[in-house]
Amino acid sequence: MSLPAPLTGVIPPVCTPLDPDGEVDVASLLRLVDHLVAAGVDGLFLLGTTSEAAFLTDGQRRRVVEAVTGHLGGQLPVLAGAIDMTTPRVLEHIASVTAAGADAVVVISPFYARLGPAETARHFRLAAAASPVPVLAYDLPSAIPTKLSADLVVQLASDGVLAGLKDSSGDLAGFRDVVTGTRHLPGFSALTGSELLVDAALALGGHGAVPGLANVDPDGYVRLDRLCRAGRREEARAVQERLCALYGLVHAGAGRVGAGSSALGAFKAALHLRGVIACPATAEPQVPLSPAEVAEVRRHLVEAGLL
Amino acid sequence: MSLPAPLTGVIPPVCTPLDPDGEVDVASLLRLVDHLVAAGVDGLFLLGTTSEAAFLTDGQRRRVVEAVTGHLGGQLPVLAGAIDMTTPRVLEHIASVTAAGADAVVVISPFYARLGPAETARHFRLAAAASPVPVLAYDLPSAIPTKLSADLVVQLASDGVLAGLKDSSGDLAGFRDVVTGTRHLPGFSALTGSELLVDAALALGGHGAVPGLANVDPDGYVRLDRLCRAGRREEARAVQERLCALYGLVHAGAGRVGAGSSALGAFKAALHLRGVIACPATAEPQVPLSPAEVAEVRRHLVEAGLL
Amino acid sequence: MSLPAPLTGVIPPVCTPLDPDGEVDVASLLRLVDHLVAAGVDGLFLLGTTSEAAFLTDGQRRRVVEAVTGHLGGQLPVLAGAIDMTTPRVLEHIASVTAAGADAVVVISPFYARLGPAETARHFRLAAAASPVPVLAYDLPSAIPTKLSADLVVQLASDGVLAGLKDSSGDLAGFRDVVTGTRHLPGFSALTGSELLVDAALALGGHGAVPGLANVDPDGYVRLDRLCRAGRREEARAVQERLCALYGLVHAGAGRVGAGSSALGAFKAALHLRGVIACPATAEPQVPLSPAEVAEVRRHLVEAGLL
Amino acid sequence: MSLPAPLTGVIPPVCTPLDPDGEVDVASLLRLVDHLVAAGVDGLFLLGTTSEAAFLTDGQRRRVVEAVTGHLGGQLPVLAGAIDMTTPRVLEHIASVTAAGADAVVVISPFYARLGPAETARHFRLAAAASPVPVLAYDLPSAIPTKLSADLVVQLASDGVLAGLKDSSGDLAGFRDVVTGTRHLPGFSALTGSELLVDAALALGGHGAVPGLANVDPDGYVRLDRLCRAGRREEARAVQERLCALYGLVHAGAGRVGAGSSALGAFKAALHLRGVIACPATAEPQVPLSPAEVAEVRRHLVEAGLL
Repeated sequence: MSLPAPLTGVIPPVCTPLDPDGEVDVASLLRLVDHLVAAGVDGLFLLGTTSEAAFLTDGQRRRVVEAVTGHLGGQLPVLAGAIDMTTPRVLEHIASVTAAGADAVVVISPFYARLGPAETARHFRLAAAASPVPVLAYDLPSAIPTKLSADLVVQLASDGVLAGLKDSSGDLAGFRDVVTGTRHLPGFSALTGSELLVDAALALGGHGAVPGLANVDPDGYVRLDRLCRAGRREEARAVQERLCALYGLVHAGAGRVGAGSSALGAFKAALHLRGVIACPATAEPQVPLSPAEVAEVRRHLVEAGLL
Repeated sequence: MSLPAPLTGVIPPVCTPLDPDGEVDVASLLRLVDHLVAAGVDGLFLLGTTSEAAFLTDGQRRRVVEAVTGHLGGQLPVLAGAIDMTTPRVLEHIASVTAAGADAVVVISPFYARLGPAETARHFRLAAAASPVPVLAYDLPSAIPTKLSADLVVQLASDGVLAGLKDSSGDLAGFRDVVTGTRHLPGFSALTGSELLVDAALALGGHGAVPGLANVDPDGYVRLDRLCRAGRREEARAVQERLCALYGLVHAGAGRVGAGSSALGAFKAALHLRGVIACPATAEPQVPLSPAEVAEVRRHLVEAGLL
Repeated sequence: MSLPAPLTGVIPPVCTPLDPDGEVDVASLLRLVDHLVAAGVDGLFLLGTTSEAAFLTDGQRRRVVEAVTGHLGGQLPVLAGAIDMTTPRVLEHIASVTAAGADAVVVISPFYARLGPAETARHFRLAAAASPVPVLAYDLPSAIPTKLSADLVVQLASDGVLAGLKDSSGDLAGFRDVVTGTRHLPGFSALTGSELLVDAALALGGHGAVPGLANVDPDGYVRLDRLCRAGRREEARAVQERLCALYGLVHAGAGRVGAGSSALGAFKAALHLRGVIACPATAEPQVPLSPAEVAEVRRHLVEAGLL
Repeated sequence: MSLPAPLTGVIPPVCTPLDPDGEVDVASLLRLVDHLVAAGVDGLFLLGTTSEAAFLTDGQRRRVVEAVTGHLGGQLPVLAGAIDMTTPRVLEHIASVTAAGADAVVVISPFYARLGPAETARHFRLAAAASPVPVLAYDLPSAIPTKLSADLVVQLASDGVLAGLKDSSGDLAGFRDVVTGTRHLPGFSALTGSELLVDAALALGGHGAVPGLANVDPDGYVRLDRLCRAGRREEARAVQERLCALYGLVHAGAGRVGAGSSALGAFKAALHLRGVIACPATAEPQVPLSPAEVAEVRRHLVEAGLL
């Protein structure tokens, strides 16, 4: 299917369930997809950071996209990440995920190689030139050493290179600059990757949200999105605050393991506790959550009425 | 061949010559290898940061190692980088480069995924368990968000996980901690990745150097290493200072392009000017040096007596 | 007067006009105060970052507070910064500004000295114990190497140490955590220091705003605040976006001078162009804006209808 | 006395003993000075970071300098820090410490105020213009957000603004750039602030060292310096490694308190254990070391043969 322009609503970055051997558990993946679709989400984002794309081999990445697009049959737009260090590898990922049926690709700035804005711009231009589907930029300065500037995003959007932005920077003022700077481009999708500021991001003109926590509580985010769209802001704020409290589960392993291990482990533990996926394993070299940490995740689910 | 323990001397991180289409130029690569061997280097490090490993596809990486090991026929130890974001991909690279004949692998901490020291340790343990050849750690905090601590390196060395360290952190005090902390492990190789502090690193007990600039002036670094070993420290210092001045060429593109683009572009421009490689192209999305910037590289070569 | 609890509305961080010799220009300062009061602001914050407190001598700091409190005669609450590296100096500033009539003090985490959360907590406790007036914390991670965590702010608020927070971190999710975490403390004031997200900060429960740009356009911020309070959110958003565009003036000197020099120089140039202050000089070692940069400031004022 | 040009040898940054009320303990300070002088140090640096200058009031700072210069009577050169956020306060400190007898002042880049290289250069030029004695720059990027570039130091040295550099950056390659870049300026003093790389810094041409640990073991650093000067490099390395092991005491409080609190607390605990100062208190808001942490300091002293 072709990507809505702009893309709106809730587009969860889908976790990638693994079996105890580290292989993609396709049955669990499709159950997770059904769980999201049933909640009324507006699209799916595969192979993002929350999907553990950085841990998956090329074969596993392809398997994920094929399984989901085959299962959905065009029912919802499917975005797929093409996360890698530099252009040549990103082009390989773009070719692979679009062959597997992705309706759009999400591309991050080059990293590892100490490049500057000139190279970043060139990277997105090459990606867009090679991609048969729209390209969205991905801003995630907690993962890579660089922040994507609003000016560059607006320039690339104006040049027809970028069809959208997934902003996971936490910098809402920069997101606002993109929103106002692209308002004259009606098809551009400004998406927030924040779990905690969806109401604020939509209020200032953002089109949608890509919150990792939507794996755990898709109904909550869909309700939040619908309340925002209806202008029922006080109710939206209450739902958002409930989700902020639930989000505390990502810190279950804090202090003992890295922030990424903790958050991904907690999302999967929650999906396992809720009966959506068969096994809470995360990819190597992540350290599994301890029983006490899983109990902490459970406590958050119970408090949020999800268990 | 088996890796000397410890590995000593000059082990250049070998540039990967590309043709104008971005493909590996094997003929130029082997000329570059001959140029380094003729200067008397003590080993070669393929697929490092200087080799543009972050830009090469899996097929290109494999081609580089096969070409060089086939050409050398065991004449010198060959190390190969297994640079990627997380363990699963690193294990694939290890399998590939060792199948292609590498005598040791060089592994960086996981990046992108916000992991902590526990996960980093697990990453190296899994890499060592899977590798048929010795594993060296690679510390490069200018490329990834984390610094590898001396304590962790010493622990992993003591446990037999790490056979050595390539320290490109610029933190000579930390390198010293590794050197003194592993002195009871006679086979451990403490290598500096600095171009600018080889004399200092060897004086405090380091075993060897992996300087990117050795592509451009391997004779200079071999001379420096030999003078250091002979205890002729004043002469060594003079040679080191000459190399520090030459190193200024990496800033040829500074301000206009990223630091990585500038340095890699300058190394390749220098190799091209010296007649070693056929084409100075760097991989996408790097921005080529301008004619004025290439002239600046040439000026450095002339001043250093290399042209 | 005693500080409203919570403090609401617009509380500009007042610029400190200087004469060409670097001395406080009291006449201009009082004209600026009148200009702000006339616009209907709800309080004044003296000796903040925007006030160039980091550049003022102890004598100059005291003169500023005395002049303003004397002039206002209790008409509006006056907050004063006690910005310095560590507790002993901060206590001196607290004593000085409260003797001069400040109704509350604003204290930043210790900096320069590589302290941790334990020392930061102790710092605020000692400040509160020594202060005859309420203490607000100041979070400004662009100026000092540390971010004040929401957890610590909430803890100190619950313990009666902190009466409020001025959050200039740009991290609206963290601000939200403070807002929800202190909701059970009815007197606590959660103030945003952002120029660009006042509507969003108030919508999620913030009490007021301390935007540097309110020196230049106090009417704009007062209008924005009133629209937000009235729930007229679309109109508020339009006013906020107009102020975001005006805020572009802070980049007038970007690239040539530091971000601080550029912003403070631009605020003062704007106040000078609007006829409020006699001289646009900033304190040493800041580099004055060039005529072309001042013209850029003027352009922003004209576009915003302020000239 | 006039400052030697260049200044060579060991110039400890002198701790500032405090009594339990936080006042300067002059008797202990002078005992500490005698302890250093007896060991044969070549100068003293007062009011540096190790001296807790960031915690001292103006009155305390002046008292320290007066006490020491009065006590020494010109026996050794006395440098004094003028550490503060911006130029106006730094000029006040320069006036104060030179009136109190300092033979040179040590000035850090402006901080807190987000200034750039242009403002930093202006800051040092204004400081030098106002100072009756030579000005040395202080590079301490662990305390402030900016690194002083070698290029700027060399430029300011060539212009006669800077008489020297105290480099506490840990970046030995940058220090080398300053050393070689100022070799044509015979009076320029290139001093390392590292405890751990004194042998390396002197070997590459540095003139002296300003190690905080020299408070604890001045004999060790004087011996190290003399061995380096005599070209007895293997013996020097052994002494340096012994001092590196002793330096481990700075981590006594690591994990519980900030790095600064831990290091300063450990230096003072060691001086107290060695009987040099009457009280190990550090300034507020630093958290005192626990008995177990003091025992860890003691263990290091015993192992180093200092107790």
